[in-house]
Parts: sequence; C-alpha cells; structure tokens
Amino acid sequence: MRIILVGYGVVGKGVTTILARRYMEKIANYGFNPKVVAIADVDGAVINARGFSAEKLEKFKQKGYPLSADPDFGHQGMSALEVIESVEAEVVVEVTPVNIKNAEPALSYITKAFKTGKHVVTTNKGPLALAMPALTELAAHNNVFLRFSGTVGGGTPMLEFAKRCLAGDKILAIKGILNGTTNYILSEMGQNCISFQDVLANAQKLGYAEREPSMDIDGFDTACKVVILSNWVMGKKVTLKDVNITGIREVTLELLQDAAKRYSTIKLIGTVEDKEVSVKPVEVPWANPLCVSGVLNAVTFQTEYAADQTLIGRGAGGIETANAVLRDLLDIRHKLASKLLS
Amino acid sequence: MRIILVGYGVVGKGVTTILARRYMEKIANYGFNPKVVAIADVDGAVINARGFSAEKLEKFKQKGYPLSADPDFGHQGMSALEVIESVEAEVVVEVTPVNIKNAEPALSYITKAFKTGKHVVTTNKGPLALAMPALTELAAHNNVFLRFSGTVGGGTPMLEFAKRCLAGDKILAIKGILNGTTNYILSEMGQNCISFQDVLANAQKLGYAEREPSMDIDGFDTACKVVILSNWVMGKKVTLKDVNITGIREVTLELLQDAAKRYSTIKLIGTVEDKEVSVKPVEVPWANPLCVSGVLNAVTFQTEYAADQTLIGRGAGGIETANAVLRDLLDIRHKLASKLLS
Repeated sequence: MRIILVGYGVVGKGVTTILARRYMEKIANYGFNPKVVAIADVDGAVINARGFSAEKLEKFKQKGYPLSADPDFGHQGMSALEVIESVEAEVVVEVTPVNIKNAEPALSYITKAFKTGKHVVTTNKGPLALAMPALTELAAHNNVFLRFSGTVGGGTPMLEFAKRCLAGDKILAIKGILNGTTNYILSEMGQNCISFQDVLANAQKLGYAEREPSMDIDGFDTACKVVILSNWVMGKKVTLKDVNITGIREVTLELLQDAAKRYSTIKLIGTVEDKEVSVKPVEVPWANPLCVSGVLNAVTFQTEYAADQTLIGRGAGGIETANAVLRDLLDIRHKLASKLLS
Repeated sequence: MRIILVGYGVVGKGVTTILARRYMEKIANYGFNPKVVAIADVDGAVINARGFSAEKLEKFKQKGYPLSADPDFGHQGMSALEVIESVEAEVVVEVTPVNIKNAEPALSYITKAFKTGKHVVTTNKGPLALAMPALTELAAHNNVFLRFSGTVGGGTPMLEFAKRCLAGDKILAIKGILNGTTNYILSEMGQNCISFQDVLANAQKLGYAEREPSMDIDGFDTACKVVILSNWVMGKKVTLKDVNITGIREVTLELLQDAAKRYSTIKLIGTVEDKEVSVKPVEVPWANPLCVSGVLNAVTFQTEYAADQTLIGRGAGGIETANAVLRDLLDIRHKLASKLLS
C-alpha cells in the first residue's frame, strides 16, 4: 500500500513513527505492507516512488523542517495538490490543521485525492464538519474509501466501536464528553474551585488549551465530532450548521457547587438524538460512567438491547491519533482485500 | 443460515425473541437470513427443517415447557446430542447452564457440533474455562468457527472491542470488573456500610445473586472470564487452573472504610498481565474509570499507543446476552462470506 502523507505536524510525524516501528514487528501479522512514497508539507515535498525506509523516515523527523531540503528526495515549493495529483499511490493520509470556516486546504486535498482515485484517511474534522454528506457521496462516486477514526476520540476507537462492535443492535442515542480541554477546565473548576479564567490560563500554560481557545470552549470542536458521529453512526445527513451549540463560558463556580450538592457536576456534552443534535453544558451525576475527569473523553451509546455502553479513553495526543490512522489503513487494506475477491 | 438452538432458558428464549423481531427489520441490512431449524431442551426437541416462523417462535415462548409437546414439530425424549448429529444446520447456538467441574453437557454438545461440521456460538463459560486452548484447536481442525461474545461482559462487546477496535495497537494488560454480583455486593458494602452477609442476603432476594453464590463471590465466574480474555485477546494458552483466585469473603467493612480515606474502594479485579493471570480484591481509586458501581461491568485495556481504554456496560441479562449471540451469528456470516470468496 503506497501512502502520500499530507501534513507533517505532530500527527504526521507520529504516523511515520508508528509505520517505521511497525514495519518490523506487528504489521506483518496483518499482511499489510505500507510504504510512504511522499510527504507534503507547506514548503514542499519529499518523494520516493519506491517508498522511504524506516531509517529514512526517522532521519526526516530528526532533521526537521524543511523536509523538502533533502538533497536526494526533496522537491522545494511543490504543492500538496501537485503531489496528490502526480505521485502514484493508493492512499492519501491527510493530517493538516483544522479550519472550520471553509475547511481549506484539507477539503481541496481530499477531493483531489478522490478524483485521482485515491482512498483518504484524515484526522481533520474541518472537511467532515462542513461537508460530510457530500464527501461521503463523492468517495462512493469515485469508488474509494474515506476513513477518519482519529477525528473523534483521538486514540480511543469510538467510531469503530459504534460501527463494528454494536452490529446487530440499534443505537438509539449518543452522549459524549468529546473535548479534553473543556473537560479539564470544568474538572479543575469543580474539584478545586478555581475560576474559569485562572484554569484557562493554566491550561494554556500546560498546553491543554490553545492560545485562541474558542474552538474548544465555545463548543465547536465538540460540535464537529457530533456531526461526524451523527453521519457515521446514526446515518443522519447533517453538517455543523445543524448543531445547536452552547460552550462553557457561562458555567460558573456557583453552578458547579450547586450541582455538587446533588452529587453531580457539569460537563460539556455532545448529544445525538432522534430529533436533536446539540452541544451544551449538562448536569451529570458523579455515579454516571460518563462522568470522567481531567482530559479524558467518554461516550455513551444508548442501545436497544444492550443498554448503555460507555467507552472512555484519552481523547487526544499525537501518537494516539497517529495510531488511529494506522487502524484506518488496516481497515482500508481489509476492505480492499474483500473487494478484490468479490 | 440454519441454526440449532441448544438450551431454552432465559438466554435461549432471548435469542428466539431477538431473531423473531429482527427478521422483519434490521437483519435484512446485513444480508443475513437466520432460520431456527431446531430447539433442544432437557426433555426433547422441536424440529422443522424449513425453519420456524417468527410467529411460531413467539408461540413456543408463550406456551412454555415442555417444548417437545408441540403436536406438529415435537420430538419428546430426543437428546440434544441426537439433534446436533441428525439435523442439518450451519450453526449450533449452545446456551445451556454453566458447569465448571467438567463443563458437561455443554462440552459434549460443542465437540459434537464441531465433529459434524457445525459452527458454534456459545454463551457458556464452562467449556471455555476448562478447555479453551483445546476447543480452539478442535474448531480450527474441523474448519469451523467458535464464537462466545456473550461469555464476557454480557451485552457489552468486550471481546470484540479488544479484537477489532484495537487492531494495529498492542494490548499490554487487561484489568476488569467482570462480575456484576460481586460488584453489587462491594458497592453496597462500601457506599452504605452494610455487612457482607446482609448485602448477600439482599442480593439473593433481588435475584442478583444465586442461592449457591460461590461461583460469584469466590471469584470463579471472574476467573472463567479472565481465561477467555487471556486466550482470545492476549494469545495465552491457559485454563482455569492457571488462574490465581481470591474471592471477596475477606473484604470487610473496615478495609472498605480504610480505602475510602484514600479516595479509593475495593473491587474484585480480574487481571491478565504478561506474567500473571489472577482474580483478587484490589484497591481502586474512585477517579479511575474502571471504578464503576452497582451491577455494572468494566474493563480497561492498557495499550501501547492509545493509553488506557475502558469499556463499561451492563454485564448480564437475558436479552443482552442474546444480543451477543446475534453479534456472533453476524460475525460468522461475515467470515463465511469472505471465506467463500477467497
């Protein structure tokens, strides 16, 4: 399987790390032989039609920016679109930064990949939040797969769990804590009585929150994930504009203390129900398995026959998300194998 | 897919209920057409080579014992072994009571099914606890599948989660609360300061505990599940005798109160690690996602790349376990489809 990697930040580097390490050990167990044939970054690309060795991938990472300065394989100034168009490969792994205004440049990369017959694995919520129904259709039309495990739950396979493990049951509703930053802030406020502003400042210092924190605290990141769950798990055709979104700016220490008197706390909950798709602060009893603290994520699937099922894990992290990319690559390989046979 | 159902207790009835309901709705989505061609119970069997209709399955359930009195399809006194041997079918669903002394009669039913070329779905921990490595080999030798989702986690797909959703990662260890009865007892003792004897008596009244509670409170039920997780998820070749087992009889209110001072409580934890497979009471911090109360089950998979992942759900129940049988049937159907194509 030849792979074009687009984006070389934390997740992109994590992908090369995992692929390099796994060359030697477990990958063989799955009959899976991934080859990174190109890496495109903002300033250019490196290309090797035969695939970069594990050692070479390690060297790229140690040397760092700019990749395209590599004397043997560098193509300075070559755009990611050109790379996707001109390099022969089966899969594009798209791991560029999120943009929920117009989803670019990721949206163009993904559609270019589809139009040139390439499967796409992305960890980018932007294109899915704004255009998931259209992208799903475009992938089907071009007879390629679109996979995006890393967009929800980071390393925790929430999407796969719903799709694969609950086969045969019916998912009636989904409720989740899908954003580690807001969960960290609310946990600190509730447990240690620290004001929103102080926790936010601290979270920014620790690297849990961005300097521009609106994406997290105004609920947009959770809303993107809710869109993805709605489409993928519940078969709804919705985009970001269909989600009722309220962030955590109005959650006060007083409200949290009040909730505590009722053995509860307040969490930012993304909800997918029959009638409504929403993100808002909700009071959750401590005894509810969904009520996890710190940067953890948790999601509860309400099912017809198997009652509530809750999955908890770390929601983010470069290597965790990179591992989600590996799962998607394995899934595509598996799907292709079945397809060839049919 | 023709199915012989062996055992007609709570789970067996649940299986017919789910299959009957699902005929009409979701099953079609999976291209799956299950037909119950025989049901064998202690006193005899009902057989219909063309498959019982949804209505007929409902009628059997309403009419109740003994099944084999049915004027059209009843075979009074016919043994389950005879049914498995003589009725044409693809799958035997084995849902008879657990026996961890010698695993009979389930063990004979399963091996008979294998030898007559039938796949087996079981919810019975006995044969797996005592002979899982041998049964796995026998199934492979006869070129049939053995599936047992319902044995661990009841309706919560713990086995599938580990096997499917964590593909590409490496599971380093497993820790779980795998028995609802003991979890209920320890939760009540810890939260409401009620003595072990009083909670046990109450649990027996509520139907959460058996009149002969040793299987649960001495840790054997948890140990059976630990054996299954060890073999299926971690690739170990172990049976019940390889598990170090300590039950909850020695857990006192004092110990629980002591733990509470450290923001912890005591849970009966099944553990699968590199060197040890064990069941014993362990102190668990309240903040640990594994620390669930009441009759809930929870399992944490410690993975190499995706950190700890915890799955929580109801561990038992007739309809939940029956739904696990449905998942297994769908999985076998899926596996057979791929096999036919290869």
